[in-house]
Amino acid sequence: MHPFQQYCRDELDRMKTEGRYRSFAALTKSRRGFPRYTDAGGREITVWSSNDYLGLGGSDVLAEAARQAIEAHGVGSGGTRNISGNTPAHEALERELALLHGKEAALVFTSGYVANQAALGTILASMGGNWQVFSDEKNHNSMIAGMKNARAKSIFRHNDVAHLEELLAAADPAVNKLVAFESVYSMDGDIGPLAELAAVCRRHGALSYLDEVHAVGMYGATGAGVAERDGVSDQIDIIQGTLAKAFGCHGGYVAARAEVIDYLRSAAAGFIFTTSLPPALAAAALASVRHVKGATALRARHAERAARLKAAFREVGVEPMPSVSHIVPVPVGDAALCREVSRLLLEEHGLYVTPINYPTVPRGTERLRFTPTPRHEDADIERVAQAVAHVLRQVGLLRADAA
Amino acid sequence: MHPFQQYCRDELDRMKTEGRYRSFAALTKSRRGFPRYTDAGGREITVWSSNDYLGLGGSDVLAEAARQAIEAHGVGSGGTRNISGNTPAHEALERELALLHGKEAALVFTSGYVANQAALGTILASMGGNWQVFSDEKNHNSMIAGMKNARAKSIFRHNDVAHLEELLAAADPAVNKLVAFESVYSMDGDIGPLAELAAVCRRHGALSYLDEVHAVGMYGATGAGVAERDGVSDQIDIIQGTLAKAFGCHGGYVAARAEVIDYLRSAAAGFIFTTSLPPALAAAALASVRHVKGATALRARHAERAARLKAAFREVGVEPMPSVSHIVPVPVGDAALCREVSRLLLEEHGLYVTPINYPTVPRGTERLRFTPTPRHEDADIERVAQAVAHVLRQVGLLRADAA
Repeated sequence: MHPFQQYCRDELDRMKTEGRYRSFAALTKSRRGFPRYTDAGGREITVWSSNDYLGLGGSDVLAEAARQAIEAHGVGSGGTRNISGNTPAHEALERELALLHGKEAALVFTSGYVANQAALGTILASMGGNWQVFSDEKNHNSMIAGMKNARAKSIFRHNDVAHLEELLAAADPAVNKLVAFESVYSMDGDIGPLAELAAVCRRHGALSYLDEVHAVGMYGATGAGVAERDGVSDQIDIIQGTLAKAFGCHGGYVAARAEVIDYLRSAAAGFIFTTSLPPALAAAALASVRHVKGATALRARHAERAARLKAAFREVGVEPMPSVSHIVPVPVGDAALCREVSRLLLEEHGLYVTPINYPTVPRGTERLRFTPTPRHEDADIERVAQAVAHVLRQVGLLRADAA
Repeated sequence: MHPFQQYCRDELDRMKTEGRYRSFAALTKSRRGFPRYTDAGGREITVWSSNDYLGLGGSDVLAEAARQAIEAHGVGSGGTRNISGNTPAHEALERELALLHGKEAALVFTSGYVANQAALGTILASMGGNWQVFSDEKNHNSMIAGMKNARAKSIFRHNDVAHLEELLAAADPAVNKLVAFESVYSMDGDIGPLAELAAVCRRHGALSYLDEVHAVGMYGATGAGVAERDGVSDQIDIIQGTLAKAFGCHGGYVAARAEVIDYLRSAAAGFIFTTSLPPALAAAALASVRHVKGATALRARHAERAARLKAAFREVGVEPMPSVSHIVPVPVGDAALCREVSRLLLEEHGLYVTPINYPTVPRGTERLRFTPTPRHEDADIERVAQAVAHVLRQVGLLRADAA
């Protein structure tokens, strides 16, 4: 046996011992029944952890656009954007995304992860690598991957504008600066102070790079995200988003000034050397972005559902983490216990909520992460709150007399 | 203006001056008419540069599987594999791919690029980073991206087994070794000596990592690639492939021993932190892999088409590069000229072939890359050979009296 095989076995054993070995629940997503899924045994499961935040992935808007495009163009694109994999749908989608964010241009990648990794990696390798990057300590793994080879990197305390300003002021004036942050942080549900962050960036001549993957479709008058809601889209240099969450589709993108996008299109290896999205996904994403622009009532209902779930938890004595968004995390604080609570909810109550353990969140902050959608009804909310309280009492995390 | 904007403008100007600025042709892929596409003006274009190598992307096999899955499950998966994005189709696809390659397990990534980058990056970060990687000098950008942070890296001359052995023999016996290579090299069309490479790896206790993206579906009795054709699948530790070329779909994968796959599943950031493929793509890929296993006649016709195209070029005095595969590159040797030849073929002959310039190939080796499919008829081959000879004469690359 090669030593690497033994290493893999040892590491897997260690994960199991620490309770953080992951087994994926195999759940079948139902287009019309969402958020009802079925498990391997055909049992109906209500899912509370989908990133199909608005429940649009199964909508007729997307399904029809995808079906028509498959009928016309087939499944795979058959090439990179440069090698016969560029279609009018890809170009129309990029124009629509630029418009959505009030930017001159946009570029679609195969995923939001790749968008961050490739865009940041390409920018920080430009200009002879003479960059210092300033990164919020809670930035997503995909941004961290994109900043991995940055020549200089400073981490600022989460959402701490004063700390960022301090670091920027101390930096070499001759170095190029980029500040990377998110709007909605997906595991805590808090939101960054975008106006202040953008202002600090401008004061120090730093490029601002904003990840809105957990906000696009859901915040702002046309669903362009928190930057739109806060009226600062034009103050942010590069906005990154995803088509795979609220837009119910697949893929990721960045939007920025024309020359920045054209440079990334021409230089980003993670864009150049990979097959483009299937035409049917480009078509479905385009239909979704256009649809979501006007979906004001859906956004309002989404926000109302999140508020209602938080209230329902409190009514049964379960205190969620202090989220100000549609993400509702409930703390558990231990990897094995987190998995056990999730297992009990699934097996005894037919409710699926993902246990969030290390490395997704720091050890000791393990949690259940609920993402209510507009398709979760009052009765669903009532039922999940009761079930969670029951299971938390069962495992000793909630006092028997709570609520 | 931020200095980065000016940098982008300068770089784009430089690409334009050097003739390597890329404009993507917007071509609409026709499901039933493949390899006929239509351009923006509605004109019919015959495409000679698709990586939908077998023309299966538009087949009923894939389209039906995708349509049924969209009807049942909608478009986006709605989550990472761990966060409600795991479906029975993803799991069945991975079992099928493991079976195809005669491996214990397989893992699907969002693209072949990500599969290479994430798998290699994760392996080389394991075991305390105590690795030396040996990489064929012509390896694809995605493998290079995965090896970027390797502690020690040795490049061996292309397909040169003796050189590899020399480097392996000189390496520190206490370091872990991994050798990365491809079977079919996509820009030259040559094929690596897999049996010898595998033997050298075993002699020196090195893990072998084989990229078969330009071979799966097309080589071997069941389309498992060149390793199957050469009877050495069991001698290679890790086989990487794509669903986006001959399989006509989207996504990538690796296949290996169970514990290696389970470790990558548990540790590879580029797998963990990204939305899983849409269920419809998993379903279409599964249908394709199963279909392609038995498509012996299609594979034979594909090989025959490539041989015929090479012969047709020679008959008109155009000497293709010495490819032994289905890839037929015709040398041009200059970026601007390469683009010009492509433009003339498109505009004056309705034929699309991508100009391949730096950074995809080294400067001075610019070429046109033809990929005949089973759907290219005799008349297509005759026509493209004549047109290429005509245009090469027009730009002075072929003597007027040639052929």
